[in-house]
Amino acid sequence: MSDLRSNQQRLWDAHMEMAVFGATPKGGMGRLALTDDDKKARDLFVQWSTEAGCEVRVDGVGNIFARRAGRDTNAAPVMTGSHLDTQPLGGRFDGILGVLSGLEIVRTLNEHGVEHEKPIDVVCWTDEEGSRFGAGCVGSNAFVGRRSVEETLKMSDADGKSIGDELKRIGYAGSEPVGGFDVDSFFEIHIEQGPILENEGIQVGAVEGAQASTGYMVTVTGEEGHAGTLPMVLRKDAMHGAARMIDAVDNVAFDFDPHPVITVGHLRVRPNSRNTIPGQVIFTIDSRHPDDETLAAAGRAMINACERIAGERGLDVSIEKTSHRDAVTFNNDCVEAVRAASTALGITCMDIYSGAGHDAINMTHVCPSGMVFIPCEDGISHNELENARPEDLAAGTDVLMHAVLQRAVRL
Amino acid sequence: MSDLRSNQQRLWDAHMEMAVFGATPKGGMGRLALTDDDKKARDLFVQWSTEAGCEVRVDGVGNIFARRAGRDTNAAPVMTGSHLDTQPLGGRFDGILGVLSGLEIVRTLNEHGVEHEKPIDVVCWTDEEGSRFGAGCVGSNAFVGRRSVEETLKMSDADGKSIGDELKRIGYAGSEPVGGFDVDSFFEIHIEQGPILENEGIQVGAVEGAQASTGYMVTVTGEEGHAGTLPMVLRKDAMHGAARMIDAVDNVAFDFDPHPVITVGHLRVRPNSRNTIPGQVIFTIDSRHPDDETLAAAGRAMINACERIAGERGLDVSIEKTSHRDAVTFNNDCVEAVRAASTALGITCMDIYSGAGHDAINMTHVCPSGMVFIPCEDGISHNELENARPEDLAAGTDVLMHAVLQRAVRL
Repeated sequence: MSDLRSNQQRLWDAHMEMAVFGATPKGGMGRLALTDDDKKARDLFVQWSTEAGCEVRVDGVGNIFARRAGRDTNAAPVMTGSHLDTQPLGGRFDGILGVLSGLEIVRTLNEHGVEHEKPIDVVCWTDEEGSRFGAGCVGSNAFVGRRSVEETLKMSDADGKSIGDELKRIGYAGSEPVGGFDVDSFFEIHIEQGPILENEGIQVGAVEGAQASTGYMVTVTGEEGHAGTLPMVLRKDAMHGAARMIDAVDNVAFDFDPHPVITVGHLRVRPNSRNTIPGQVIFTIDSRHPDDETLAAAGRAMINACERIAGERGLDVSIEKTSHRDAVTFNNDCVEAVRAASTALGITCMDIYSGAGHDAINMTHVCPSGMVFIPCEDGISHNELENARPEDLAAGTDVLMHAVLQRAVRL
Repeated sequence: MSDLRSNQQRLWDAHMEMAVFGATPKGGMGRLALTDDDKKARDLFVQWSTEAGCEVRVDGVGNIFARRAGRDTNAAPVMTGSHLDTQPLGGRFDGILGVLSGLEIVRTLNEHGVEHEKPIDVVCWTDEEGSRFGAGCVGSNAFVGRRSVEETLKMSDADGKSIGDELKRIGYAGSEPVGGFDVDSFFEIHIEQGPILENEGIQVGAVEGAQASTGYMVTVTGEEGHAGTLPMVLRKDAMHGAARMIDAVDNVAFDFDPHPVITVGHLRVRPNSRNTIPGQVIFTIDSRHPDDETLAAAGRAMINACERIAGERGLDVSIEKTSHRDAVTFNNDCVEAVRAASTALGITCMDIYSGAGHDAINMTHVCPSGMVFIPCEDGISHNELENARPEDLAAGTDVLMHAVLQRAVRL
């Protein structure tokens, strides 16, 4: 088994070529889903996959599947992949590694003439980041039936442009049905997006599960007024109320052990004029914890804090739960395949838990799934400074390749 | 003197006609400077002024002057006016009253065949609100030489569009020189934008002066990171730091007696994605107080609070003073002219202080200046609900007309 290795330089070069589309001045990526840059990235993936002999299909929500045929053409495929879209100020590896590792596996198998029983599908999921259309894992959600295709296509961005229209515009409104076929198993390789592997000096994480997560939208409503004339005691300043709520929400994390992670990442002010007392502030809360009960308790504490502050300041507050995912445990056979591949290849491996959401979590609804983590520099992600080492990309890809081959039955 | 009165219905109707351009669903106005709606409002003012026999001139920063000739064509004009632009969510009277009262005075003088020695200029100043190009009183600042024409034309909005280009686009890049001619005196009528006149049951305020004001731009810089993976204790969350600063800045107001007014009206988050820890937050502070020294002390307290919080949270903060205006006292002869006109007309009047900035404050740099305030409903302004009574508009206009005629020397 340990004879077969990926090509580290080729894998790295693919990342650098893909990083051209949506590159930011500080060396990061700003490639929002279904933009012109996303189209260019998709086109390059399709071109590379076709050149590698894959059959490429695109489904009705823009998910791209590149298939390396197996001997048994009727067998359910072993699937691997991730996404090519990024945060507005993100990095060159988050998601992209998962797609390009899959491609590198196909190229390596071609090079060595390796055959397998079941087909291997490399997938690029549509809009994993959720930075543009309001919710993440759009493509895999539709694939596993968690959101209907119709609803998916209607989701729209801040300018009112829908996923359906944007898919058509960039040429990725595919003709294949969304989901509805058997998948043998799904593996996703991803940078850890946290500091643990790097701190421990270990090359690969076998991901056991993912934490629970709940998102909220908080709308604070006061009264607009002139900044120069309305006395302080008569004000209903939505910005000041929101500021106190954000401080309180953040502090809730420290009331639980281990701390949940709580983030107010998005905020907008109405009318957002420097000489008008804000009449309305809307902000999001992202909260996550490995334990469902603890996360629910933290949610109740945050809601209580916001309502208390609104009452003290004469403001109205409404808090909407916009997303929720229970904690997830990955399939034990898949996790074991990752551990076994690492051992066989002599690559250091530890069990780890995912802090972030991933398409692989959706895939647990339809097939045995697992993930491979690799270290990223200083644990930094969702940031232009996100970075990873070529040798870690290659080591993770090797582990992924052997786990996939074990499921696909190498001939 | 008391024979001459404005036409209350005509004045009110002019406001309602002008309120069509940029009307908002809740009955307010969103007519940012140099937009298509601002052009329509300007066109209507030019049309009405021309129909009333005025000679209309437009200067190089788009200020519009409609002149009713005096017997002495060489005399410096008595000037009155205000602005037609509004806040993003503003009202139908802020600024607009000052322009339409001037027009109503011309119409009334025409109707009664009244002549005067000096010319009377009705002015519409460009971009008083400052909601689009970053600073207020743009037209009057250029007129009095506080900002060069060149610098003024270069000022740009969030989309990078400059005042110079936008003036050309809407046809108001005029050929007249900016300022540089003598003005006998300047009067501006305006809604109070505060609750005092209404609470006292008085129809007109003779404005003695305006409070000092200082604006700041605060930039809080932390580090972006993944909302799901970076432990709370390792975060440098610019949003959380900014929230604490806003709370502290607001609380500073209550350490001084009487309280300054302090407002955080504008805020933006970078990258503003719900699942990314914010790396940067930029917000404005607007602070005002009648006493220069007290305002300076409040400013030092706010800066200290922001720097202390940044230090505690491992964040960088930079605080830039973006605007400053000392407290202003209006010309005593002008204030007295307002008081005298009220007495002669039997209209109730009290001395009052302005909480807001106005073009009249700029005009104190070049000529004797004064203001007339009228009540507005519940003191609400910079708000779609801003409202005023037809009889108060007319009473204020009558006082303004007689103060202007006293300076222009009625024949």
